[in-house]
Amino acid sequence: MVSKKIQKALEGSSAIRAMFVEGKEMAARYGVENVYDFSLGNPATPAPAALNEAIRELLDESDRTPGGSLTLHGYMENAGYDEVRAAIADNLNRRFGTRFSARNLIMTVGAAGGLNIIFKTILDPGDEVMVFAPFFGEYRQYADNFGAKLVVVQPDFSTFQPDLADFEGKITAKTKTLIVNTPNNPTGVIYHEETMRSIAGILERKQKEYGTEIYLVSDEPYRELVYDGNCEDFLTKYYGNTLVGYSFSKSLSLPGERIGYVVVPDEAADSENLIRGMEISNRTLGFVNAPSLIQKAVARCLEEKTDVAFYDENRVVLYEELTRLGFACIKPEGAFYLWVKSPVENEEDFVNEGKKHHILMVKGSAFGCPGYVRLAYCVSHETVERSLAAFAKLAETYR
Amino acid sequence: MVSKKIQKALEGSSAIRAMFVEGKEMAARYGVENVYDFSLGNPATPAPAALNEAIRELLDESDRTPGGSLTLHGYMENAGYDEVRAAIADNLNRRFGTRFSARNLIMTVGAAGGLNIIFKTILDPGDEVMVFAPFFGEYRQYADNFGAKLVVVQPDFSTFQPDLADFEGKITAKTKTLIVNTPNNPTGVIYHEETMRSIAGILERKQKEYGTEIYLVSDEPYRELVYDGNCEDFLTKYYGNTLVGYSFSKSLSLPGERIGYVVVPDEAADSENLIRGMEISNRTLGFVNAPSLIQKAVARCLEEKTDVAFYDENRVVLYEELTRLGFACIKPEGAFYLWVKSPVENEEDFVNEGKKHHILMVKGSAFGCPGYVRLAYCVSHETVERSLAAFAKLAETYR
Repeated sequence: MVSKKIQKALEGSSAIRAMFVEGKEMAARYGVENVYDFSLGNPATPAPAALNEAIRELLDESDRTPGGSLTLHGYMENAGYDEVRAAIADNLNRRFGTRFSARNLIMTVGAAGGLNIIFKTILDPGDEVMVFAPFFGEYRQYADNFGAKLVVVQPDFSTFQPDLADFEGKITAKTKTLIVNTPNNPTGVIYHEETMRSIAGILERKQKEYGTEIYLVSDEPYRELVYDGNCEDFLTKYYGNTLVGYSFSKSLSLPGERIGYVVVPDEAADSENLIRGMEISNRTLGFVNAPSLIQKAVARCLEEKTDVAFYDENRVVLYEELTRLGFACIKPEGAFYLWVKSPVENEEDFVNEGKKHHILMVKGSAFGCPGYVRLAYCVSHETVERSLAAFAKLAETYR
Repeated sequence: MVSKKIQKALEGSSAIRAMFVEGKEMAARYGVENVYDFSLGNPATPAPAALNEAIRELLDESDRTPGGSLTLHGYMENAGYDEVRAAIADNLNRRFGTRFSARNLIMTVGAAGGLNIIFKTILDPGDEVMVFAPFFGEYRQYADNFGAKLVVVQPDFSTFQPDLADFEGKITAKTKTLIVNTPNNPTGVIYHEETMRSIAGILERKQKEYGTEIYLVSDEPYRELVYDGNCEDFLTKYYGNTLVGYSFSKSLSLPGERIGYVVVPDEAADSENLIRGMEISNRTLGFVNAPSLIQKAVARCLEEKTDVAFYDENRVVLYEELTRLGFACIKPEGAFYLWVKSPVENEEDFVNEGKKHHILMVKGSAFGCPGYVRLAYCVSHETVERSLAAFAKLAETYR
């Protein structure tokens, strides 16, 4: 009785479901402290104390103001509160030298909601959405929501930067958008200035060649999670047709609250219609607006940061120890993922071998890139420390 | 550069936009107290004080608990917190004699999010979605999101109950769902037991005739807004294949927070797959989950009610006065809308005539039912009182 697409999704989702159930069973059987679950990309650092304080202030202000509750919990324009968007625009302008105003921002139900209103606004059925492998698997569903086709670009397997020749060769007249996700999930790699300039150059050339506009959609949930002195970057400076989808989920550790925004720079082609189209899409896709109280709360926490040092400690320990044990790892520069080459061709065998040692990892084929696995190190330091002996045993299997 | 669908939506939305701008201009020119804006269905009563109290309690509890912030603002299952769903199930069971458990509920980003995850789960392209005119205009977009076709059933124009013969005649083998919205937007009519039993009987017969399942989707944002001793009703008792989409927007006056739920009763055909399908849809459409803090807050406010008497006062004054002035009105039994027959065939002329007297109304054709207008009386008592002289002058035009 369910739709054909959902029937297919139900069949496909059973593997992930099985792993989730298996993890719970393992924790119950062996004790949660003896299971090393690196499968989930959930923040492990608490939200800054300023967040709850901001919410309390908003509640107090609302209670003191006649009709305050209707404003705090009420409808606003589909794009979000004007003063919230203005505050975020100012913050971006200070940090990145951009020149946005409130009109360039649309508050969204997280980055997932943001990408969907972008896609609803720009995609016709049959259009092509390009992604650099490996990529966050749900991009495929987001494109499919609007009848578009995913075109996957291979990585340079030595660096996990995109293979630019493969990229250029796969752009067609139907290419409507390219998703760029840096710092990257699942590799932890950052696309540095040189890569971004090359991507922009290729897009400019191809736009001219085909007489089309190709929007670069920058999916930025990990923007502030950078290590080793790498700077936070903002991709609108490389390429005019850049649209940004941002989420506060990781930067303020509030993924359950579903709060983010989209930026449509004035430089983007047809920007006025894009903005109005995304406002309509926010409504007609059923989001209506980003949650109101949390919109106002994050606007008061724009200078706050999550504890990047916490993730960094896990990153260094895990990368160094796994490398020492003989695993080939890509050194993460951002996000909270470690990308490891499977010692055997079929990485599912490696994942299953890991389970025997109570290590939970996600297979690379879930990210369009078999032969690798992803470790999410957004876990406690104790979990990392305790896992090392298990990794040592796992390494012995492949010696 | 925007998609064809959005291009069309941009053209269509200009009329509503124009009205919004016009209303703002009128308020600026004549003073906001001299403009009688009955165009927007926004709650006018504040949220119960218990809501902000519940949020404060949750913040305090979270601050006292190690890792509390990760739970309060963190990811949970796509269906929502188990204890929130259990609390709502218990509340429904007490009030309506149902037998739901947490598994039957999926927390959603408002009713708009709920209807979209239902549609994503059950609709294939080309399926038919039936609605009773007049209807909330965005149902059309929700159906279109999944390539389905809207089939509009005429009302009985004396009562604005659905025309059941027209309904039965339009059901086909492709009918996948019927949306029922009672208390109704825009008419304020309630579909009483007899109507609901007739609808259920017709659906049962047609399911047998075609060998299909037809889901009745009950869109219930106004469930608790009933007058004159009418009881709150819950449609699952009439028909097994009923799915419920609920919103707390009106009942707790928090439309900006985007919080609601879907109920999938065990009796619904293929209920297990429906539930799992909606969990997947919540994720892949970009909602991911209903906002976390507000989920927990509403679970503590299930016994709270908005001030129905406030709306009732507006209802009685406006209905009696407009009727006395010679306008043909449908007496509202629920929601906060008054449905008025246009004294001239083209109700847009009536809407424009109203504007001359600073009265803002919405044309019936926006609800698939020309010849009528909707007045949203979720405004202050003062606005209603001050509008009466303007309505008297408007009536003179048509004497």
